Amino acid sequence: MKIGKATVPRSAICTSNEERIVIRGANLSEELIGHISFTEHFHLLVTGRRPDAAARAVLDATLVAIAEHGLVPSVQAARMTMAAAPDAMQGAVAAGILGCGSVILGASETAGRLFLEVERVAGEQHGGDIQAAARTVVADLRARRASIPGYGHPEHKSLDPRVRALFEVSRRAGGGQKYVEIAQAIEAAIPGVVGKELKLNVSAAIPAVLLGIGFPANALKGVPMLARVASLIGHLTEELADPIGFALSYQATRAYEYTGELPAGESGGQA
Amino acid sequence: MKIGKATVPRSAICTSNEERIVIRGANLSEELIGHISFTEHFHLLVTGRRPDAAARAVLDATLVAIAEHGLVPSVQAARMTMAAAPDAMQGAVAAGILGCGSVILGASETAGRLFLEVERVAGEQHGGDIQAAARTVVADLRARRASIPGYGHPEHKSLDPRVRALFEVSRRAGGGQKYVEIAQAIEAAIPGVVGKELKLNVSAAIPAVLLGIGFPANALKGVPMLARVASLIGHLTEELADPIGFALSYQATRAYEYTGELPAGESGGQA
Amino acid sequence: MKIGKATVPRSAICTSNEERIVIRGANLSEELIGHISFTEHFHLLVTGRRPDAAARAVLDATLVAIAEHGLVPSVQAARMTMAAAPDAMQGAVAAGILGCGSVILGASETAGRLFLEVERVAGEQHGGDIQAAARTVVADLRARRASIPGYGHPEHKSLDPRVRALFEVSRRAGGGQKYVEIAQAIEAAIPGVVGKELKLNVSAAIPAVLLGIGFPANALKGVPMLARVASLIGHLTEELADPIGFALSYQATRAYEYTGELPAGESGGQA
Amino acid sequence: MKIGKATVPRSAICTSNEERIVIRGANLSEELIGHISFTEHFHLLVTGRRPDAAARAVLDATLVAIAEHGLVPSVQAARMTMAAAPDAMQGAVAAGILGCGSVILGASETAGRLFLEVERVAGEQHGGDIQAAARTVVADLRARRASIPGYGHPEHKSLDPRVRALFEVSRRAGGGQKYVEIAQAIEAAIPGVVGKELKLNVSAAIPAVLLGIGFPANALKGVPMLARVASLIGHLTEELADPIGFALSYQATRAYEYTGELPAGESGGQA
Repeated sequence: MKIGKATVPRSAICTSNEERIVIRGANLSEELIGHISFTEHFHLLVTGRRPDAAARAVLDATLVAIAEHGLVPSVQAARMTMAAAPDAMQGAVAAGILGCGSVILGASETAGRLFLEVERVAGEQHGGDIQAAARTVVADLRARRASIPGYGHPEHKSLDPRVRALFEVSRRAGGGQKYVEIAQAIEAAIPGVVGKELKLNVSAAIPAVLLGIGFPANALKGVPMLARVASLIGHLTEELADPIGFALSYQATRAYEYTGELPAGESGGQA
Repeated sequence: MKIGKATVPRSAICTSNEERIVIRGANLSEELIGHISFTEHFHLLVTGRRPDAAARAVLDATLVAIAEHGLVPSVQAARMTMAAAPDAMQGAVAAGILGCGSVILGASETAGRLFLEVERVAGEQHGGDIQAAARTVVADLRARRASIPGYGHPEHKSLDPRVRALFEVSRRAGGGQKYVEIAQAIEAAIPGVVGKELKLNVSAAIPAVLLGIGFPANALKGVPMLARVASLIGHLTEELADPIGFALSYQATRAYEYTGELPAGESGGQA
Repeated sequence: MKIGKATVPRSAICTSNEERIVIRGANLSEELIGHISFTEHFHLLVTGRRPDAAARAVLDATLVAIAEHGLVPSVQAARMTMAAAPDAMQGAVAAGILGCGSVILGASETAGRLFLEVERVAGEQHGGDIQAAARTVVADLRARRASIPGYGHPEHKSLDPRVRALFEVSRRAGGGQKYVEIAQAIEAAIPGVVGKELKLNVSAAIPAVLLGIGFPANALKGVPMLARVASLIGHLTEELADPIGFALSYQATRAYEYTGELPAGESGGQA
Repeated sequence: MKIGKATVPRSAICTSNEERIVIRGANLSEELIGHISFTEHFHLLVTGRRPDAAARAVLDATLVAIAEHGLVPSVQAARMTMAAAPDAMQGAVAAGILGCGSVILGASETAGRLFLEVERVAGEQHGGDIQAAARTVVADLRARRASIPGYGHPEHKSLDPRVRALFEVSRRAGGGQKYVEIAQAIEAAIPGVVGKELKLNVSAAIPAVLLGIGFPANALKGVPMLARVASLIGHLTEELADPIGFALSYQATRAYEYTGELPAGESGGQA
């Protein structure tokens, strides 16, 4: 069935024949394998360009920062899935990836779009004043009762320790600082609008430093996903040796309360 | 419900409190972010150890080698999924990952287990003679009509160009060569048993060089999965800008033949 | 880690002990197995109530209508995934499900929300006049350059044959007709606003008849998903016997055009 | 890329043109919608035949029996995924489906294959004696330290209440009893071989009654998957109204023990 107008598949990423594979214009076997790191290759695949030293340092730092944070929901989902289907590691990784949504890891992208919005509003409405634009945008989010993506963290309330590390890498490596400044302007604007502090978390720091190296906004969500897959493979390798998937699911329901009805004739009793 | 005996979830990968996150014994913000590359971090997460220079070079090379090979089935599945559900990039990545099964990307693991089997058989039955063990193991696979994972390639018939590049990186970097030799012994044994040449492909070269740096067999499957996610994010970023998901699905069915029945009263005609 | 405020898992769907399983207040083994159909059970699970005869007929009809439509993108993605990972049917089903997004099968939900919006606007702005409300809402969508979910179909341009069948079942069975009328009012409003006819497709007919039996809007998306899984299992059972996953992927790229660069020294040539 | 020999996609399930959709030889709008139940449609899609009354009753009963059993691991994985990515219900359903592996819901298929093996062994080695064949096959599994799929249940130790209900439906409806007898012969053989009783659970009862209506072994795994999707949609609809995904993940790790090292300078302390 023909859906939409395009009928010829085109792509600028890869072509191959029997002798060689070309990726983004480079011969894979001769110019890439052994010559660039996986992080550089990821940058090349996504943007079509090899990263300069600043971009490589910043991209590496973000991938390291967001890969692992213990038994978070996506890791639990993956380990439970592995326990139920141990032959199909790809299914467990996929289950973990599916938890990279708007609420959890996806905030890297929505926070990035928030920074671009502040940049736009600063230019169009505030003569370039980022502080003022941050107040406008935060107030607008607040008026719509929307949350502010990338601010506040359930565990790292006073300061997410990954934020300072990422900002330091960005500065040392020579990454653009514009979006770091926007991210901090939003942090500064929040108390006046929201009535309490919400500190930058890692999901705001990541787009702040990545937009500064020209990483495309459309690919921001991919960074936590790629990073999380590295973590998932670590957890699933451990799960194969020391399984805890069912232990997690057992613990999760120890305090379970059934709130529905019981069949006629059964007194309440235990669930 | 309690399934199995373990009830307490334990893990050696990560612990955290409000101030710091510890990964494999290291403080994430102070010792890892900005200090190690993503490839090194992946090695640390999976094995608990930081890689030496040889391990880093080899792991980087394998991740670069296997990430991308054009519009392969898993990339097509991901791009079609993205076209149908453009708001959920994680779903499209997951769909792509689910194609890393026994036939396609999973061969890295099964080929690795084949090498370990040849090593075992060489020690137990052939006084350490790898050539003889390779002939024994290949003949046994052949007798069971099983395929030989990691040998032969639909496109790169005479030589997979990625193989030579990976072996060269391994040798230059000082990675262990034992499994490379086993991989080549199998390649040499095939014509005598199978009656035709089947050349080493990238899915055999990857475990050959990774087992040589002590990468665990249980995690081998994770390498092509992580690599492929980098590629998928590249393709999905392109899909957002220049969608071809529906074009792929349109082309795929242009030659479709319906082999079932038609309702009574309909003459054959077109489908 | 504690995310959000709720810490105790509660649910009204199921409780069990060693002797019996209770679902929505009924004893599964004594009151449900052998006593209700799967469609009735689905209704019970989702709504907490057993369907009356009208609801059962309408829900069955929608599930039958949307299950299968040939080698659509989600079926292709599933069959390619099965070809690559034949041991993990669950992965192939999951890949197919992931294509139930906002553009394709998810339109059942967005069309349903559109009908509720017309109902609201009719009540609040037009004294209950559905025709006027439909014009207002369609004009508003048009002004925002949004598409009208559930109207127009790439193959069934003049009339989607499933629509009439679903409406007839709904009428005969005694399902509520209010949302059918709203759906038709939108169809009638489109030419005046959009400048061309866009006929009701199955994704509008489904919520039109389901909202009429009190099926919850939040669960509308689940109907095409459940239906599509039945179809996917049919296709994957066929795939196990007569595989076409790789044939689909081969056909899909026969017309492929590489639009990127080639390595220096390579003249254009074919990809 | 051409993988394998088949290049033309063929299927016997569906064809369509602008006017009508044909499924397994029937006109969808005129012969199926409003005329058959979803369960019958599922049977038609998978087997190409409409079920007789016995097959319909048995297939309905199995789908009702296996759909729901509370907050099992796959439901937890789905609810956690929904909490993290509430906009993409298809992702949460997919995550739940991915837990239908060899250990949990997939036992319906492996138990079915076990029954077919007992049937074969009875014919080839024991002159049709099912009891003797059951002892042979169970002893063989035991010798290989393999588990016996479909026997024993973590909660329903003395009797899985769904088993009796399914067998009763099968008998009353007139389904073939051969595989029920085989299933019971295996149950009877277990104590003598294993040294303790392991009672038939629902995952053995399902293939026992389904093989008796001619349902294909290759599609057995699809029955618990389809059923579980109905349950998942119930849970995810409840999750949208009363979220517990994060509460489950919080509870799951309350007893968490970190078994790795701490950074130099940190005394043990809390995790």
